[in-house]
This record gives sequence, C-alpha cells and structure tokens, in this order.
Amino acid sequence: MKKFTVGVILSLLALASAMDAGAQERAAWPAAPVVSPEKNGDQITFRIKAPNAERVTFNGSWMSFMENPEMTRNADGVWEYTVSGLEPDLYQYTFNVDGVTMADPNCLNHVRDGASYRTWIAVKGEDEPAPYEFESSTRHGKLEKVWYDASVYGKQRRLSVYLPYGYEESDGKYPVFYLQHGGGGDEEAWPTLGRICELMDYMIERGLCKPMVVVMPNCNPVVAASHEVTLPDRNPENMADPDFAEGISHVKSMYTDIIPFVESHYKVLTGKENRAIAGLSMGGIYTLNLTQMRPDLFDYIGVLSMGTTPEKKAVDQLTPVKDAGYKLYYVCCGESDIAWSNAERLLAGLNELDMDYVYYGDVPGHQWETWRKCVLDLAPRLFM
Amino acid sequence: MKKFTVGVILSLLALASAMDAGAQERAAWPAAPVVSPEKNGDQITFRIKAPNAERVTFNGSWMSFMENPEMTRNADGVWEYTVSGLEPDLYQYTFNVDGVTMADPNCLNHVRDGASYRTWIAVKGEDEPAPYEFESSTRHGKLEKVWYDASVYGKQRRLSVYLPYGYEESDGKYPVFYLQHGGGGDEEAWPTLGRICELMDYMIERGLCKPMVVVMPNCNPVVAASHEVTLPDRNPENMADPDFAEGISHVKSMYTDIIPFVESHYKVLTGKENRAIAGLSMGGIYTLNLTQMRPDLFDYIGVLSMGTTPEKKAVDQLTPVKDAGYKLYYVCCGESDIAWSNAERLLAGLNELDMDYVYYGDVPGHQWETWRKCVLDLAPRLFM
Repeated sequence: MKKFTVGVILSLLALASAMDAGAQERAAWPAAPVVSPEKNGDQITFRIKAPNAERVTFNGSWMSFMENPEMTRNADGVWEYTVSGLEPDLYQYTFNVDGVTMADPNCLNHVRDGASYRTWIAVKGEDEPAPYEFESSTRHGKLEKVWYDASVYGKQRRLSVYLPYGYEESDGKYPVFYLQHGGGGDEEAWPTLGRICELMDYMIERGLCKPMVVVMPNCNPVVAASHEVTLPDRNPENMADPDFAEGISHVKSMYTDIIPFVESHYKVLTGKENRAIAGLSMGGIYTLNLTQMRPDLFDYIGVLSMGTTPEKKAVDQLTPVKDAGYKLYYVCCGESDIAWSNAERLLAGLNELDMDYVYYGDVPGHQWETWRKCVLDLAPRLFM
Repeated sequence: MKKFTVGVILSLLALASAMDAGAQERAAWPAAPVVSPEKNGDQITFRIKAPNAERVTFNGSWMSFMENPEMTRNADGVWEYTVSGLEPDLYQYTFNVDGVTMADPNCLNHVRDGASYRTWIAVKGEDEPAPYEFESSTRHGKLEKVWYDASVYGKQRRLSVYLPYGYEESDGKYPVFYLQHGGGGDEEAWPTLGRICELMDYMIERGLCKPMVVVMPNCNPVVAASHEVTLPDRNPENMADPDFAEGISHVKSMYTDIIPFVESHYKVLTGKENRAIAGLSMGGIYTLNLTQMRPDLFDYIGVLSMGTTPEKKAVDQLTPVKDAGYKLYYVCCGESDIAWSNAERLLAGLNELDMDYVYYGDVPGHQWETWRKCVLDLAPRLFM
C-alpha cells in the first residue's frame, strides 16, 4: 500500500457513486502500478512499464550523466535496472524511453533539477539520521521566499532565505552565507536538491557550525524567480541577455541590491568578516567574478565544482582577493568532476600567488551528492 | 530556443572537451525535442513522442479526471492532442502512455498535484495580468516554511505561512486566514497550485481584501511535511492512523498546536472575529469537523468543493456554529463538482436551520481553477 493512498481514498469515496460503468472501465484500464524503486538488501531495482518501447535506458546521479545503461525488458513489458552497493546518500535517477527522458512515473518523489525532473531515492545507512534527513527531534530553522527590488534588472526578484532556529526570538545578529546555484538552477535548488535547511539544522544543532543566515538568490538574469512562480513562458526574447555566461548583471545585483536588502531587512552582522560567498558550477564562476570585482565584501570564499575557465587567468581573478585580504579561500572539486581542469587552473593560481587555501577533493563528480557534502565541510569553517 | 537552454549552455561548454566520441554518439541518440505544448491562435497542441506505444491518452484539468481522450499518432511516432477555445486560466495536463500517467517530458513546467506530477499551461487573456500571474510591478508578500511543535502528534510539523508585504515593518497586527488543502495535498498545495501568494498580493494591492496572514498547515496525520522535506519513505506503517478520514488528529492539532503557535509567533490579532477557516475537499470536511467541535474559534467559515458526507447530518455539524454565532458561512461548489451532493446536503442544513450563508456556484468542478476562483471571491468577504 503506497503512501499516497492517503490522498486518493477520500476522492475515491466521493467518486464511487458518481461513476458510470463506462468510466469505471476506463479507470480500470491503466495496469496495476509497477513497484519502483524496490529495495532488497543492498540491491535497488528500478522499473518502468513500456511494453512497446524499443530502447529504455537508465541514469542515476551516481553516474556521469552521459552514462546510460540499457534497461532489461521482462516478459510483462516492464523494463528493469538493478544497482547494488550504493553508499548511503540521497540520489536521483531518470529513465529514457525511446529518447524521452522522464522521472519515474511510479514513484512520487520527484525533484526538479534545473530543467528536468528526476526521482529521489534515499539509501539509508546504519547510522541514522544522515545530515540531509529531516529529523523531527531536531530544532528547525525556517525558510523564507522573499522578494526584493533588483535595481540592476528594474524588477523584483526572489530570494530563498534560511533563518536558523531561534532567529525570531534572538536579540543578537547573525553572519550571512550567500550561496549560489549552478547553471539551470534557481533559488529553489539549494533548499530542495541541496537540502540546505536540513544540513544547517544538523550542523547548528550539534554545534558544528555557527548559527547563520543563508541567502540563496536566483542567479539567472532572464527570470525573476523559479518558473513555478513566474509561470510557463517560452518566449525566446527572455534569452536575450548577453551577460549571462559571466553573470555580470547578477554579480552587480549581488552588491547593489541583494546584500543591501539582506542587511536592511534581517538581523544580520555587516562587514566582510561576517559575509561568506560560495557557488557551485556556474555559481562558482559568479563567485570568482564577484570576488574579483568586489574583494572588499567577503572574508570567506568558496568555489565548488568550478574554477578558472580556459579563457581566464587565475592570477587576474585572485590578485584582488589576495590584496584585499581574506580569511578562507576554499575550493571543492573532485578529480572526476567535469570542471576539474578549471579547478586545477584555480589551484595553480592560488599556489602561484602563494595564497592560503583549503582544497577539498574527497567528493564525487558534478552532482548534488558532492555539493551537500561540501556544505558540511565548508560551513563549519565560516565565521570562526 | 527554449528557456532552459540558459541552464545547459554552460554545462555543455564545460563538457565539450571532456566528451569522447562514444559519449557524443550516445548523447546524440535522443531525438530533437518535441515542441509541446504549442499555441496557435486559440488552439493548443500537446505532443509526446512514443513511436511504439499502443495507446496514448490525454487528460487536462478542465476535464473530469475520468475523461481521457485518445491522442492521435502522426507519421513520426509523435502523438498529438489539440484543444481549442479554453478560457483564460491556468490549467494542468498529463499524458497516459500505455497505462503510465506522466507529466509532459518536453515541457519544464511541472507541478505536483498531491501524488502526481502534472504540467502547467497558462492560457492568457487579453487583460493582463490575471490575478494568479506573477507581476513584477506589484508589491509582494513573502512565504515562510516554518516548523512548530505538534503536541497532538508528538513531533514537529511544517506550515506554509503567507505574510503580506509590509508585515515586517508594520506596527499593527493582522487577522489570520487558516486554509486547508484537499486529500493528497500538503502544505505546498495552496502556494503552488493555489497560487495563494499571487492571489493575495493581487487582492491586497488593489484594496480588494484586507491584508491578512494566511496559514496553510499540512493536514495529513501520517506525514510531518511535504514529501520533498521528509524524503522518500514507502513504509506502510505510516498509513496507520485510523483518524485520518475524519482528520481528528489534525483538527485537534489546529486548536491545540497551530493556532497557539501562530498567535505567539506572528503579529496577528486574536479572537474569533480575527480568524477565518476554510478548506477544499478533504479540507472542507476538516473545516466542518473543526467548527462543529470548536465553534468558538472562527467567525468566518468556508467549505469549498465539499459539504456534508452521507453518513453525517448537516444540522449536527451546523447547530453548534449557529449557537455560537458567526459572521460568514460560505459554501463554494459547482453543480458539476464530484462533491456536489455533499454540498447540497450542507446547503439544505443551512436552510433548515435558517442560517445566513453565501453560496458561490459559478465555478467548474473539483479542480484548482475552482479553488483559485473561490479564494478571489471569499477573501474580500473576510474581516470586513
């Protein structure tokens, strides 16, 4: 009996008397739900019914996204793929049925990863709870979705803001961690895929990091907020922002709009010693650009799954930071990450300039398992 | 060029040099994206590529959910369905491919409706913006996701809370509108499908309703919060709550936990004249049960797409409300709604007891188009 049965029983009760025979027949047509995913010991089997499909492939977030193993068709037209031995973590997966990528239609736990919907699967370890799991006995901060005037764009834009538990009642002020998403993400990415609220609650509860406010902007110049808010719009004119790859408008808006908004609307400390900035992938580029342009703003700088792109020079990006002074320069990128060569260039620049830094490489590739792990490593180093 | 191209260009740049020839070949295998939906005048065509499927059907939220017209296969194996003349509104749709229901894999705009993911489509009218559209020039309230101690459940649970613009700066206090979701929904339903923030912003900005706080609990006894937060869990023991159909635990928690939490943590007015309660479908049942048990709490009561179920007596549900006194009793249910016979029983009870009420029936069926319209009609009647 599946969890979402709760949701349909009442509707079914209400419907029963209203259904004519023909409707009942049509309603009965979809086959019994396929069980997917199914855990059996350390094996997990994923299934999708597609009796007439020619080719069905699988992708899991623990693989490269170019890795697409074939699924196997059984006699019922159900295609299966089994994995075993996954480390405890929170993963996502998709099916591709004859060229169409989709989340698992038989599992409720979808999550949006930028432009696509994927399905969550949690592989639990023996030591519970994992930091990313929700734990009812822990105290919890809250998450705000708040609008601010973005003068750089001439419109309002939306932020996700994590406030640690006790924020409302506190007489004190908090430092601020600005955390940027990657390409295709938005202000929802860190709270959903990154599970930032659960991770921060976990660390703060255990005294592993300081209570802090975490501000997660929408870094895309072409949309004001997650598409759930701004509604369907396929107008190609919305693409017309030549600055997007560099994130210049976003970077300007960070110091012109976002930081002033946060510092005037929340109980936060000011000054560079109370500000941290980090970003993953595209957000890592924005971090490099922002700290190069405004090295006076942040004492704590984190570049995740990114580094110096080939057309840039790391010493140009880093020299202003070195000159202005900083307390932490942090690079997280695994050697299997698609951005590893960029990270290598950044690390080489840090070495060349003889700058202190922390490098954290014991992470998988360009995926959320990496970035959640990275936050657990990085946040305890901030504001200490 | 699709909107989400923004998101992938950077990844593709980063990837280009890393891809081997085999990977490029695999990456090229998925066909060019199908354009879906495509608008052409007042026609909208929905498409899905499924060359080997035997039967593909369509469902739109403007239909009964038992209505599943066949889609037509064209020469490329793309199945199509075209609709014309839809009234301006925000709809959702799904495909069913050989028995598997799914959101449109070629359109980013998915939205969760309880246990299923559907795809949004906005049909825009000539007068823009519609109340449910995000408008950058309007002032916007904020949305909080906040945890409270639910003593009835012995655990923390999550609320969505809408705070009108100006809340932070205001010296005043606000009335509170408690708004409950339907079966299968959760505390995300009103903010996403119900677009409550956009609707409230729209009405408040135009002076159509009073600024108010809107509190949207998770009314399901078996989960503490939306499944995005509590993570995948298919444990059937979680179903074991005999009270769920009546919502007894939720109803108790409303007056034991939720109202006291809201009134001690937010700048809100107290007393029944400053509290409104409404709910749709299952949430309508909970509204009836709560106001029967605690008629002293709310002066404004709304039952949406629901009424008195066959095993109940409307006079039993209503007499305590009549005796305690109230300012508004509001019923919204269209005659095509699956809950219409329940609404008829409730309306008969109101008449039998000679109670004043407002009935609003100019709405479609058991769907979010109805409930958004209903909020626009109901909220202006609250706290006036």
